Order: sequence, then C-alpha cells, then structure tokens
Amino acid sequence: MTLAGRIDNLGTEKAFAVADEALALIKSGATLYPFHIGDINLPTPENIVRAAERAIRDGKTGYCSNYGLGELRELLAEDVNAARGTAYTADNVAVQPGGKPVIGKFLLALMNPGDEVLFPNPGFPIYESLIGFYGGRPVPYGYLEGERNFVIDIGRLKRSLTPKTRLLILNDLHNPTGAEASPQELEEIAEIADRHDLAVLCDEAYFDLRYEGRSRSLTSLPGMRDRCVILFTFSKRFAMTGWRLGAAIGPRDVIDTMARLNVNDESCTNHFVQWAGVEALRGPRDGRRRLIRILKERRDRAAEILNAIRGVRCYRPDATFYLYPNVTDAMRAKGLTDYEAFRRAALEATGVSFCTRLHFGGQLPEETERYIRIAYGGIDLDRIVRGLNLLKDYLES
Amino acid sequence: MTLAGRIDNLGTEKAFAVADEALALIKSGATLYPFHIGDINLPTPENIVRAAERAIRDGKTGYCSNYGLGELRELLAEDVNAARGTAYTADNVAVQPGGKPVIGKFLLALMNPGDEVLFPNPGFPIYESLIGFYGGRPVPYGYLEGERNFVIDIGRLKRSLTPKTRLLILNDLHNPTGAEASPQELEEIAEIADRHDLAVLCDEAYFDLRYEGRSRSLTSLPGMRDRCVILFTFSKRFAMTGWRLGAAIGPRDVIDTMARLNVNDESCTNHFVQWAGVEALRGPRDGRRRLIRILKERRDRAAEILNAIRGVRCYRPDATFYLYPNVTDAMRAKGLTDYEAFRRAALEATGVSFCTRLHFGGQLPEETERYIRIAYGGIDLDRIVRGLNLLKDYLES
Repeated sequence: MTLAGRIDNLGTEKAFAVADEALALIKSGATLYPFHIGDINLPTPENIVRAAERAIRDGKTGYCSNYGLGELRELLAEDVNAARGTAYTADNVAVQPGGKPVIGKFLLALMNPGDEVLFPNPGFPIYESLIGFYGGRPVPYGYLEGERNFVIDIGRLKRSLTPKTRLLILNDLHNPTGAEASPQELEEIAEIADRHDLAVLCDEAYFDLRYEGRSRSLTSLPGMRDRCVILFTFSKRFAMTGWRLGAAIGPRDVIDTMARLNVNDESCTNHFVQWAGVEALRGPRDGRRRLIRILKERRDRAAEILNAIRGVRCYRPDATFYLYPNVTDAMRAKGLTDYEAFRRAALEATGVSFCTRLHFGGQLPEETERYIRIAYGGIDLDRIVRGLNLLKDYLES
Repeated sequence: MTLAGRIDNLGTEKAFAVADEALALIKSGATLYPFHIGDINLPTPENIVRAAERAIRDGKTGYCSNYGLGELRELLAEDVNAARGTAYTADNVAVQPGGKPVIGKFLLALMNPGDEVLFPNPGFPIYESLIGFYGGRPVPYGYLEGERNFVIDIGRLKRSLTPKTRLLILNDLHNPTGAEASPQELEEIAEIADRHDLAVLCDEAYFDLRYEGRSRSLTSLPGMRDRCVILFTFSKRFAMTGWRLGAAIGPRDVIDTMARLNVNDESCTNHFVQWAGVEALRGPRDGRRRLIRILKERRDRAAEILNAIRGVRCYRPDATFYLYPNVTDAMRAKGLTDYEAFRRAALEATGVSFCTRLHFGGQLPEETERYIRIAYGGIDLDRIVRGLNLLKDYLES
C-alpha cells in the first residue's frame, strides 16, 4: 500500500530514539541514569487508585458521553477557575484521553490550510509536527536567557507576525526550559493576540506542578477567555501519565467542535479513569503534596550539581520537572560542537541519558548557545546525585 | 474564534440525539426500552477486572510505547492468526485506545485528498464523516435482502469503481444489519481489490461476537494481507466498551505510520488497561462464554417477537448484537413514510427507543424498503420481551 502524501509532513518525538538507546544500554548491563524521560517514577496517589478500582467494580465499564462525565467537567471548570480567576462552566470542558489530544483537535478545529501558526522552539515537538501535518505553516518563536529564567523572545515573535498568522501556541509553563511568562510577558502576548485576532492554545500541562509561587494563565487577562483553549492534563499534577486523562477548556463553540472530533476519533475517554479524575480533583491532597516535596528535593540537588560543573550554568525554575542547562562551554572544552556527538559521548562515558536542544526543534539561525534538557521526574534522588556527579567528572576531565 | 472550514465536512453519530431523547423520556418518569444503544449492559469478566487492578497496583501507571505493550502485541497477532489463518507478528500490531481510532488513522495514512473511498451504507456513520473530513470522496455501496441475511450489493459496488477509487471499507460482520460476507462475496471483493489496487480497512469489530459458525476474514484470502488493515477491538468480545482498547493490524509500513500518528495524537494507550487486554486474550474464557450465552438468548427472543409483528420481517444473524428488521409494511399501516416521525411516534407510544436506517447514512436512490435497527446488547431479556411486545401492540393497533 502506498502511504498518503501528507505523511511526509508528519513529525514525531525524536526523544523516543534516545529512549531506545537507553534501553539498549541497560540490556548491555551498564548502569543507566535516565534524565531523558518526561515521566514520573512515583505512584499515583492511593485515593485516586482506589477510586478507579471502585468505579470498575461499580460497572463504569461501558461507553459514556463524548464530552466526558458531567461531574468531571464541573470539577474541571471549578478547578481551573479557582487557579485562574476565570468563569468557565462544565459546558466549556471536553474531557480527552490525555492532554496531547487537545493539540491536534485545537488545530483541526481552528486552523485552515496555509494559516501561519506561531509555536515555541525549543518546544514540545508535536506542535510543529501537527501544524505541518494538517496543512498549516509552523512559524517558530524562541526563548532567551533572562535574569532568573528564560523569557520569550517577544521581538522575534512580533517580527514573525504576518497577515496570515492565525494561531499561537503558548506553552506556559514551558517544556523544555521550565520558563514561565511574567505578568508583563502575558500582557504583551494578550495585546498581540487581540491586535492580530489570534486563537491561542494555552498548553498548561505543567501549570499545577510547581514548588514556589503561583502559576499565571493568559486566560486570566481581559478578553482572553474568548481567544484561548486551555490544554489541561492530570498526567503531571497527579502522577497519572499512563492513565491518559486530560481536557480541553475554552469557548463553547470550539469545545462543541472538539467533542464532535472525539465522537469521530475515539468515542469517549475511558469511563472509569474519569471517576479516578473526579477523586483526584475532589479528594484529599496529601498524595500530591508528597509528589511535590519529592520532586522539589530532586530539582534542588540536580540544579546544584549542574551549576557546580565547569562550563555549565543552569536556572532553577519554580515549576515543571525540567532543567535546561547551558552547556556551551562544557561542549567546547570537550572539543564537540555537534549535539548528537556530545549526547552519545556523555551517554557512553557515564550512562547519563538526556535530550538535547535538537529534540525540541531545529536550531534558530540566531542561536549561538548550546543546551540540554535534564528531566528529573523519572529518576530517584540518589541516582540523580550519582549520575550528575559522573557527568561532572566526565565534563571536567 | 472562527472555526476552520474543514469542520463543515465533519459528521457525527446522529444516534447520540436518540440517546438524548431517551434520557429525557426517563427523566419524565416514563419507562424506556433502550434498543438504540450499541453497547453491552453486562460486566467485564472478573479475571480481566482483576488484571487491571493488579496492573495499577504494580505501578503500570506511567507512559508506555506508542505501539503498545510487546506482550499485548504478540498475543493480538497470535489471536488474529488463530482465527484467520494469517501470519502476523507483533510488528504488525499497533495498539489503540479503542477500535474507532483505527478508522481515522487508516484514512490519514493511506488516503490522499480527492481519493474515492467505497464505504457501506447503511453503515457505521463515522466512515463517511472522516472520509469527507480528511478530504476524500465518500462513495457508498449498499446491502440487499438475501436468502438468509443481507448481502453486499456487489453490482452497485462494481458500478461505483472509478480510476480514482483507492480505498474500500469493509465492515464484516456488519453494523447495522448483522450481515456477514459469504466465501463467494469475499472472493469477489478480493478480486476487485486486486484488480483496482485498493487498500482495504477490514472493520472486524464484531468478528468475535458470534453465536453459531465461524467468522471469515478478507485477510485470509491470498494476497489480501498486503492490502488490508484489520480494525480489532476488545469492546464487544469482552464487554469492554468503556475501557477503550483496540488495535490496528496490517502491513508493517502502514502500522509504523499509524503508530507515528499515535505519538502525535495520544502518546500511548492507557498502560494498565493494556495489561487487562493481555489477561483477556490469555486468561480463562468462562466470562466470554457467559456473555455469548446471554446475548444469544436475547437475539432469539427479539427476532421471534419481531417476526411475529404484522408488517415486520427480520433475519436472525449468527453474529453481532443487532437486528435490522424490514418495517416497510408496518410503517405503511401506520400511515407513516417519514423515518423520524415513525421513530418518535413509536417512542412516545411505547417507550421503545431505536435507531432507523437514517442513523446509518442517507438512503440510496434505489432504496424502496424501510428498516430500523434493534440493538439488544444493552437491555435485559425481560425488558426486551416487554418492550417488543408493546411495539407489537402499537404497530398492530
């Protein structure tokens, strides 16, 4: 069978190749330090697990609404409103089998072929893949090193606007950098969205995974509710990545359209998993607090060791489970300029596995610095310490 | 936000409107006899439920491969081979969150804009919706009343072939009629597929839900393995509709492409649900035998009562949980020619809720007879008897 022409435009997550190499290393008997994984190696809180078991036993095993359970939609609206000061109702919520399905459905519902879509680069690679696959034109905007963390390169973003720009993807808080937009940045983006009449995907997958302070959302700003669709996921906040539960939250006509896409694509989201989601939002928070405490310890130690490495510097973001160290000098000291050569050399020498900047999009022309991503959600503290110290020894040798 | 133009081409399942009306009826205090539901009101077998619980407890709650678990892929290949005489391996299998996702992914992987796609009408409405939505041209073929069951209108199918015909959707065993292709029909279809170089989606969602005899698959015929993608689902066979677990099985390059679509669309299928699928295929079969026994009783009584109604005649298919009675004379006796008027009148008079032919596509020009679909998977035997006898009284009054 001949594949359709459109498949040429379909990308993927290149990080999967890193995972395959890491697996091969383990099989060869070597010790692996898996910093490449954007996953959490901690159990889902007990009350959520019990709610799922109860729901299966109660026979919540048949189809349910393509929009999701009424109870869950209501709780999601309440939860999002409480954190963002918005006024969504259950009608603004379409439950999804994960956060990721919101990306494709947002583009299918709102992007016409030929539309230009601004997306973050470095960024989650699925944005660029699906924009191109569904016939749009992906236009990247970058991040710059700021005072305490990375900041959006608003200058580049503004220069990239054309009369064909119709959509903007904002991943705040941001994978891979851990950046979060300041109130000023959000205001600038809101102004741009208004002036250019843009629809905005607010990918807030990491919104609730934070250690200090309070997350902000573009949807809180005046008029933005009518322009934005929020990508919500249970994955990170409740250590539920493999459960596949998320939601799209936005204006009712867009949500109705996305739910119609659900009828066509997957009928509905797993029925009893949604009851686990109800418990996650309504039940006790101890499990979540424990998760945050453990991840925070990991972040602190990882950032500390990375910053102690000669030729490496690194912010310590208040949220996400990512660090995005600048390794320009360390690479230079090793005589390496190629990202993949550097990644493989470090992996072979130390067993430390990570993604590089290139797993989050092609380098922008103005980029001179080199970065890697250290994900600490999927690796225990003692192994973080051991692995990053091995990396330190290697880079300084 | 302005919706994308392509949304105009997106259909839905109109049966959801029937479900809403039925719900309103229940809320008004009336008794409902829900024959409109393509679902199963029986619990998932206990061993499968226990396997899911065990997997959650074992921490199978993180991401897994976009292709699905290796164990599950292997068991799926073995299961399909045993029933079809094929020689698939795990590499030919991409696990999906349900059977339905196979439809869209098949079209995205193999259909170019402007391609003509033959699809069954009456048939599952998502085929026509997604063919049009992704830029193809849906071309219907029909079913005729045969000796013991409906048969594919091969004449119409052949006349509809053009140089632009690239794909064929075969839903065998068939929703809504319960038809299954004879060896002769399958041979004719294989010949057509070969001669016109067609890619075929074999939607075999009901393949394993049968009471007598043995299901046949187009994939068993010489050369067909390279042309076909099987839609496999756990939903009907194991009473797991709300679990959302299925698979695409076909040539490796197509499966690789579909799995790449999974990376983009939903990362992976729920991790612990896949372990439940492993148990479903590997564990004891008692639960499944009980399911078949109960559904068979329902089929027999439902067909018996329907055939006793004046102006109604009905096959008794060996598989699926659907009956598709010819109600032409009964409608005439009521002075009704409009499907929706008939459906609503029957619902109001008796509480019996069903879908009509129109929920499975627009009538073909040559169609003179009238049909409704009686789904007996979601309603107990005593209520089947009571409901259909009320329908009998109403239609004969």
